[in-house]
Amino acid sequence: MRRNVLVGLLLLPWIATPAFAQEPSADSKVVVDTLWVMITAMLVFFMNAGFGMLETGLCRAKNAVNILSKNFIVFAVSSLAFWFVGFGLMFGDGNPLVGLTGWVLGGADNSPATGDSYQGVFSALNWTGVPLFAKFFFQLVFAGTAATIVSGAVAERIKFISFIAFSFVLVAVIYPVGGHWAWGGGWLAGRGFADFAGSTVVHSIGGWAALSGVLFLGARTGKYLPGGGVRPIPGHNMGLATLGALILWLGWFGFNPGSTMAADPAAIALVALNTNMAAAAGCLSAAAVAWLAIGKPDLSMILNGTLAGLVAITAPCAYVGVGSSVIIGLIAGVLVVYAVLFFDKVRLDDPVGALSVHLVNGVFGTLAVGLFATDGGLFFGGGVSKLLVQLVGAAAVGAFVFVLSSVVWLTLRATIGIRVSVEEELEGLDAGEHGMEAYAGFVLEKEV
Amino acid sequence: MRRNVLVGLLLLPWIATPAFAQEPSADSKVVVDTLWVMITAMLVFFMNAGFGMLETGLCRAKNAVNILSKNFIVFAVSSLAFWFVGFGLMFGDGNPLVGLTGWVLGGADNSPATGDSYQGVFSALNWTGVPLFAKFFFQLVFAGTAATIVSGAVAERIKFISFIAFSFVLVAVIYPVGGHWAWGGGWLAGRGFADFAGSTVVHSIGGWAALSGVLFLGARTGKYLPGGGVRPIPGHNMGLATLGALILWLGWFGFNPGSTMAADPAAIALVALNTNMAAAAGCLSAAAVAWLAIGKPDLSMILNGTLAGLVAITAPCAYVGVGSSVIIGLIAGVLVVYAVLFFDKVRLDDPVGALSVHLVNGVFGTLAVGLFATDGGLFFGGGVSKLLVQLVGAAAVGAFVFVLSSVVWLTLRATIGIRVSVEEELEGLDAGEHGMEAYAGFVLEKEV
Amino acid sequence: MRRNVLVGLLLLPWIATPAFAQEPSADSKVVVDTLWVMITAMLVFFMNAGFGMLETGLCRAKNAVNILSKNFIVFAVSSLAFWFVGFGLMFGDGNPLVGLTGWVLGGADNSPATGDSYQGVFSALNWTGVPLFAKFFFQLVFAGTAATIVSGAVAERIKFISFIAFSFVLVAVIYPVGGHWAWGGGWLAGRGFADFAGSTVVHSIGGWAALSGVLFLGARTGKYLPGGGVRPIPGHNMGLATLGALILWLGWFGFNPGSTMAADPAAIALVALNTNMAAAAGCLSAAAVAWLAIGKPDLSMILNGTLAGLVAITAPCAYVGVGSSVIIGLIAGVLVVYAVLFFDKVRLDDPVGALSVHLVNGVFGTLAVGLFATDGGLFFGGGVSKLLVQLVGAAAVGAFVFVLSSVVWLTLRATIGIRVSVEEELEGLDAGEHGMEAYAGFVLEKEV
Repeated sequence: MRRNVLVGLLLLPWIATPAFAQEPSADSKVVVDTLWVMITAMLVFFMNAGFGMLETGLCRAKNAVNILSKNFIVFAVSSLAFWFVGFGLMFGDGNPLVGLTGWVLGGADNSPATGDSYQGVFSALNWTGVPLFAKFFFQLVFAGTAATIVSGAVAERIKFISFIAFSFVLVAVIYPVGGHWAWGGGWLAGRGFADFAGSTVVHSIGGWAALSGVLFLGARTGKYLPGGGVRPIPGHNMGLATLGALILWLGWFGFNPGSTMAADPAAIALVALNTNMAAAAGCLSAAAVAWLAIGKPDLSMILNGTLAGLVAITAPCAYVGVGSSVIIGLIAGVLVVYAVLFFDKVRLDDPVGALSVHLVNGVFGTLAVGLFATDGGLFFGGGVSKLLVQLVGAAAVGAFVFVLSSVVWLTLRATIGIRVSVEEELEGLDAGEHGMEAYAGFVLEKEV
Repeated sequence: MRRNVLVGLLLLPWIATPAFAQEPSADSKVVVDTLWVMITAMLVFFMNAGFGMLETGLCRAKNAVNILSKNFIVFAVSSLAFWFVGFGLMFGDGNPLVGLTGWVLGGADNSPATGDSYQGVFSALNWTGVPLFAKFFFQLVFAGTAATIVSGAVAERIKFISFIAFSFVLVAVIYPVGGHWAWGGGWLAGRGFADFAGSTVVHSIGGWAALSGVLFLGARTGKYLPGGGVRPIPGHNMGLATLGALILWLGWFGFNPGSTMAADPAAIALVALNTNMAAAAGCLSAAAVAWLAIGKPDLSMILNGTLAGLVAITAPCAYVGVGSSVIIGLIAGVLVVYAVLFFDKVRLDDPVGALSVHLVNGVFGTLAVGLFATDGGLFFGGGVSKLLVQLVGAAAVGAFVFVLSSVVWLTLRATIGIRVSVEEELEGLDAGEHGMEAYAGFVLEKEV
Repeated sequence: MRRNVLVGLLLLPWIATPAFAQEPSADSKVVVDTLWVMITAMLVFFMNAGFGMLETGLCRAKNAVNILSKNFIVFAVSSLAFWFVGFGLMFGDGNPLVGLTGWVLGGADNSPATGDSYQGVFSALNWTGVPLFAKFFFQLVFAGTAATIVSGAVAERIKFISFIAFSFVLVAVIYPVGGHWAWGGGWLAGRGFADFAGSTVVHSIGGWAALSGVLFLGARTGKYLPGGGVRPIPGHNMGLATLGALILWLGWFGFNPGSTMAADPAAIALVALNTNMAAAAGCLSAAAVAWLAIGKPDLSMILNGTLAGLVAITAPCAYVGVGSSVIIGLIAGVLVVYAVLFFDKVRLDDPVGALSVHLVNGVFGTLAVGLFATDGGLFFGGGVSKLLVQLVGAAAVGAFVFVLSSVVWLTLRATIGIRVSVEEELEGLDAGEHGMEAYAGFVLEKEV
């Protein structure tokens, strides 16, 4: 009897998807497009390792296990959240504000059919000719990225369970709704808002959610001194941090070129090259500015300058020339250094510079489309209309995400609490949250 | 004169393979299938880094060089062993028990011809239309995985030379024979035994060989106290361990989807998604169970839960729906936590949890095919016949591998010895086996 | 008014490349070839992480930030240098000595048209049917590799700014001119010089430039004792070093098979297998030789033996059989151990063994084509003519690179200086060059 109940449960359609049923005969374009989408999605998945190593390396040894745990489990949480409800809210057919179909990947779908031949509930993705599961997998790794951005900004004082809860809501609801507007056939898409791979959709959404978290969490104990001074808290493992940044640079070759969601030779070559040149330019300009402004070529600035260039080129990478990419990267590298200094000045404590990288340059990259696009950009004779649409999109998504995130952070604060105790913070979250240490056997300095 | 001998040696057919001779004209299916097989094989190769970092991080600093050396050299040993004899034993034409042709990749072969058009000595692989060298490369990285599983279980007390010797025999003989039964046209294949990517063939074979090693090696000195207590021996570098687990998760997107050995869009999308969802579910259930059972969300349990989900979905990934994958992953995550506790209770010392991950969940995953397969699984109205075949296969391979491994371990113990001295163990294997230390310049605690 | 100037600047052709303009209609061969070239290029890009982790791990903790910074920024520098001028000097149409067109990727080009259909200024690359930007991206990651080789040999005493300056010149001028001779339609290409993936072009060029740097920089303070003794300076993080070597092994599956620059199934399967077998053989022979010659299987020798095998097979990988690859790898593994001992004997201080790996085995691999090529190699009945061409090529490129590099090093020494002060060297370059430490919070031993 109990077994029958179980069998009934397992026979629910979303459990018993017949293997390979969704595609009767694969033509060769579907094959190469699917290879490209799957392989680039794997590279984007690997960015979880990049974010994890970067964030861990830039924080303190006593919180390393906690940061690693957050960055690891967040993709598991994202996978479930996006599968249950997020993908439907983002890409399911609905209205200009939100998708209303396709929960748990259910509903009609004859992918990889495209265009008018497509019949199903995910019309917003009918332009890419790959199986539904490939579309989902690719979009899932993007959703996971948004959540992991938050992780860095709230590190070293957030409760583990609260981070998990926030991440679930972010990937289940906040990211998908904002994403629906731009990529899911929503109202921004209708106005011509252009965000090729997600400067706004992924990076600024992650950034706004992070900003909200930083505001409600407050700074790490001891970071800002009563008299107005700022105490530097150096990262504990620059090898891990640098490895993380290189993995992210690699992963971006999946992120941006993969967003073609088709094996289009000219497009992926252009997008990959633009991505690389902006990264290189951001690296060099951040190094130079840090050298001049701080006195030394600080490695964390070099890393963040590169990531800033990558975030900034994410929206425009398919719409601009290689030279423009270099200029966008150079600007991004300058922006990130001054943004880091600015956030410390206004006492918003962001241990890894996530706001400076993802929020500031996510917005800048979105606007850069309006400035540098060869078709319609201000600097290329296109007037200001494109720029205005970009501005409206960046602002609208930002306002929505910031408000909704604040509601979630406040709700969590009022219920399970969002911040560990000062005692736990001083001892390190590894002991308090996980009962273990990251570097057993090493002698560490006592913090004072 | 001597040069003539050398020339003669070099002219042996297996040395002088004419470049590009095996494929007169490549049609487009061969091209995309080969790209897919080669790229996924590279991802599986990268799992060597994943296992190496995971195992090193979960053990002690004083043995890090030894563990890194083992995990690094094992793939070199595997490459030679599988090339010389393993591939022939596994996939060469022979009888239901063992392959008997194709040593050193020799013998007739007109790959990438498939099916009835195939003429050669590797008939068991005639279903995949890629060049012979691509078949070999893909199968080699799988063979290497089996050997590296053993490494974790026997860590921190095995002699370096003995591990090399055992690995050679495992990849040259034990793994290929077991693999021949299921994948090489052997008797299990004939009965319909289904193991899509190797829960049994790779993971449980590695696991049984590891179990045998653990039994004959004994526990690490000081792990189990005379009065019945268990002394926890924490890992020394959780950053490396977490990185390793993420590399393994990435590598599994080669392992499972690559096992299509063809660029079949629907199949690879389904398999990749199932793989990811089982990993995510295993991660979350292990975290929850650890939180409840141990009191804290232990990071090593989170990592091992994910790997458990991955191992468990390896056999059924192409045969089950996405919902079933989530359930399989959830179960795997629970299993691994209790298995770790169980092995400590029976005093089988497995420093990294390799038995709990690969053996327990390798067997579970194999049985899961009989339970969850949409075509013939017990929970989907298929009765018990499929489940019984899976049970027979898992048991037969397990018995064979355990017995043969035991013979090898006993032989090694009687000859060169398998365990380092207690003095060397206490000082660390890095000094004794390699004459160097992993962290020169760091102050480490003295172990007591 | 100022805006008009800016607009004018941005409208320069190299900035305003119209998106996707270079390829009217993609046929399916162009698609798969481009996927292969782009994906393998990404793997080669990832070698930056491999070199960075290997070099950092093999040096001291007090110089880790500096080494990480060098290895990270060098690819940004390379990207700009190769885009501005390097690619044009190497592959632009010109004369047998140097390319003279194609600065900043400008000039006519109708890629992916091939052969006689190709019309443009990069005739030397008209054999590969991918978009120009894909050709550039693939060649860029190779150029970056050459620069990063130098980094290891000059580590722990070079000024950061001088390394950046040298790298710029190397990638802008020295590497491209040497590369033009062999790959860019230059005089060596005309004589049949064969270097499939760059044993000479990439590895020995990097190696000769490094040798020149080591000569002009001098040894690290305290490395060679007045009485003739050699003080071993052990690496500080063997986990990072081993990870780096595994990333490099992975990256080489992009480096060598990707050099087909076409999705040719038989060729890429053969090249990948040869690459792997030479690596495995080099690993094992270096381990064995170290065991016999030094007394223990030193991990750094195991890693360098593998890399030696990879460097040595880079030139011949497409021209030899699998058995020959094993032999080439075995020889490389022996060479690298004795080369390390030799360079210490002649007091050339190379902290990571870059000369032994890249220079010695780059030359050996180049000659191995003349010995082992199934078509024309000495051991396969081809006489000495092929070997002589290889010898001429290796020597000519070496002489050119060594002389030009020496001019650059001497110029830098006479201007901004190339070596940090002894005080800074003893304290560590992290403090002096970057004002930070790699392992904040860890207790490190004082060096004496």
